[in-house]
Amino acid sequence: MAAEIVNPRSDAGTDGPEEAFDPAFALHRGGKMAVQATVPVRDKDDLSLAYTPGVAKVCSAIADQPELVHDYTWKSSVVAVVTDGTAVLGLGDIGPEASLPVMEGKAILFKQFGGVDAVPVALATTDADEIVETVVRLAPSFGGVNLEDISAPRCFEIERKLQERLDIPVFHDDQHGTAVVTLAALRNAAKLTERTLGDLRAVISGAGAAGVAIAKFLLEAGIGDVTVTDRKGIVSRDREDLTEVKRELAEITNRAGLSGSLEDALSGADVFIGVSGGTVPEPAVASMAPNAFVFAMANPNPEVHPDVAHKYAAVVATGRSDYPNQINNVLAFPGIFAGALQVRASRITEGMKIAAAEALAGVVGDELAASYVIPSPFDERVAPAVTAAVAAAARAEGVARR
Amino acid sequence: MAAEIVNPRSDAGTDGPEEAFDPAFALHRGGKMAVQATVPVRDKDDLSLAYTPGVAKVCSAIADQPELVHDYTWKSSVVAVVTDGTAVLGLGDIGPEASLPVMEGKAILFKQFGGVDAVPVALATTDADEIVETVVRLAPSFGGVNLEDISAPRCFEIERKLQERLDIPVFHDDQHGTAVVTLAALRNAAKLTERTLGDLRAVISGAGAAGVAIAKFLLEAGIGDVTVTDRKGIVSRDREDLTEVKRELAEITNRAGLSGSLEDALSGADVFIGVSGGTVPEPAVASMAPNAFVFAMANPNPEVHPDVAHKYAAVVATGRSDYPNQINNVLAFPGIFAGALQVRASRITEGMKIAAAEALAGVVGDELAASYVIPSPFDERVAPAVTAAVAAAARAEGVARR
Repeated sequence: MAAEIVNPRSDAGTDGPEEAFDPAFALHRGGKMAVQATVPVRDKDDLSLAYTPGVAKVCSAIADQPELVHDYTWKSSVVAVVTDGTAVLGLGDIGPEASLPVMEGKAILFKQFGGVDAVPVALATTDADEIVETVVRLAPSFGGVNLEDISAPRCFEIERKLQERLDIPVFHDDQHGTAVVTLAALRNAAKLTERTLGDLRAVISGAGAAGVAIAKFLLEAGIGDVTVTDRKGIVSRDREDLTEVKRELAEITNRAGLSGSLEDALSGADVFIGVSGGTVPEPAVASMAPNAFVFAMANPNPEVHPDVAHKYAAVVATGRSDYPNQINNVLAFPGIFAGALQVRASRITEGMKIAAAEALAGVVGDELAASYVIPSPFDERVAPAVTAAVAAAARAEGVARR
Repeated sequence: MAAEIVNPRSDAGTDGPEEAFDPAFALHRGGKMAVQATVPVRDKDDLSLAYTPGVAKVCSAIADQPELVHDYTWKSSVVAVVTDGTAVLGLGDIGPEASLPVMEGKAILFKQFGGVDAVPVALATTDADEIVETVVRLAPSFGGVNLEDISAPRCFEIERKLQERLDIPVFHDDQHGTAVVTLAALRNAAKLTERTLGDLRAVISGAGAAGVAIAKFLLEAGIGDVTVTDRKGIVSRDREDLTEVKRELAEITNRAGLSGSLEDALSGADVFIGVSGGTVPEPAVASMAPNAFVFAMANPNPEVHPDVAHKYAAVVATGRSDYPNQINNVLAFPGIFAGALQVRASRITEGMKIAAAEALAGVVGDELAASYVIPSPFDERVAPAVTAAVAAAARAEGVARR
């Protein structure tokens, strides 16, 4: 497929020189996904079962017993991948149409890795309340909602309101998917260096969707302390320029009461988690505690180049596929939704996310090494392990409906 | 598939006795459709083209040139099948969840017959303005909108407002699909009896979505006269109980100025078109003009039983697959959308619908007979003929964008 190089200029009238002869454009021509029937529609007997008149009794049964919608439609296997196009990759606010290639990509990853059907829903509004209302109205057709590439702080409000109003899982992957995979890698890194999470003090560079969610989730999982930094430095209670979300963060993080810059925070820290872009000066990395972990997840340019990080750190992870230990959300979201849908969970709880992280860490098993704290996205054991763990946790937490 | 009979009671906890051992339920278990990737996602090279980092340049290109969304996403091949569940088959207002089996059925017919991807969107609101707003917000993700099973008169307002606000085709199939297939059958019936449309006076029983649309469309196509009846009788200018839609109808139909009952209207009429349910008394059928046509389309019980109709009429059609001349929307909507999407039409014009009807009528060709005025839904010539005619008409009418 990638070998068939099409020049999009030939009939699309584009003029960007980089578009010609680029395999990414060739691959994207016509989109990356399709719908298929899973039942035969070859003759009038097929039609009379799958459509009228046979379908009428199925509709009537659901009207009488609404929960049957999960049995007799694809609701329980399909997730809406919802965005407003405001925080797409590192490209920022590029609008709903331009976000569609990412949403389609997400959809096919859901299918490939989790067996979950997913439909891109890129919305022509950036108003938080309008997004919430729209998704609430769409909800009858879907078994879950994956929020994607919606900028902070609106993403927090949108997720919270949707979770309050819907009885299906609502999950902002940029927050929680990243947090789950980070926790899995961190658990294994701690194990490798014979420490527990409680022994670790982490510094997170970036207080957007991912940074906030990772901070909360690591605290939930029992990490020793977390300090978050934004562009103005350490998020601390004495700052007066904080948004509501960062004020909340300041209450639960930074137990040491640090103030100052990212460099100040890193001095003596055990873990660096980069979800911000930018570059960390080498002396700051050098100032970290012995056996430090550097998770520099910015793409395509990690906050600390792996070659630099390895001079000082015991474990190095990035967001890139060409270095060991790739922190990739695809390790989490397909199995998390597959598990939640399998048991028709009404929501995705903290316990389900922690179970996902533990299952993910567990796949590494006895092969644990500094260059192998997290499995490959193509490890076929990952999605089944996460799915089973999430389904079991949903049952244990009482949010499963079967 | 249909042979594998599953008892849904075994794990769904249902108790309707008719559900056990019914092949329609077995077929519907788990739904009737799925999403599939159309590009490989087998290894990290695939992923780096279909997802990050390769996808970023495709997103950027669309952000720079919005029309490229049609080239590099599935937008141009995917239609939203939108309902609010208020007029589902003959079942009425059963709500969005219970309508999903019909919407999935529609989606797989789109795929099977037109190669068009379609996604069920059953909305949790019946407010016309909310439906309009919701669909406008969804529109970036879709190449067209097929409205389905939305009750009259809201369906007229919703369609009109969406057509005003969107630059993609918006088509209420219950109205226009039915009208297109009816016109095709009527053209061939007229040809068979050596008459033109202008020679014919039709009576339409039913002033809901289908009846209103058929009346307007037949007038557009040049029929001699149309009289519409509702539950209270002939829709005429002297009635004071008419809705706005019916008042408009009274202005353009019933040139003879008839008033009274359906039976009064049928006396001497050339064509009966039933889209209402109910039963037409045999004497009224007998009172029609010589060489009459009876299109009794109510399902499963035609307004005139075909055996009765054949006593008096030259051509008989129904909505049923077990009699000749089935007026089935699946003859029209897949090709209409396929043609519109092929040329990226901004809307579906009257000319495109008339072209669809003519193409459909043309498939019958020299085999025209009283028992064959309309092709079978499974005639493989139908969708390509309709698609080509609609695409050509879109170009001729200046609504094509390529």
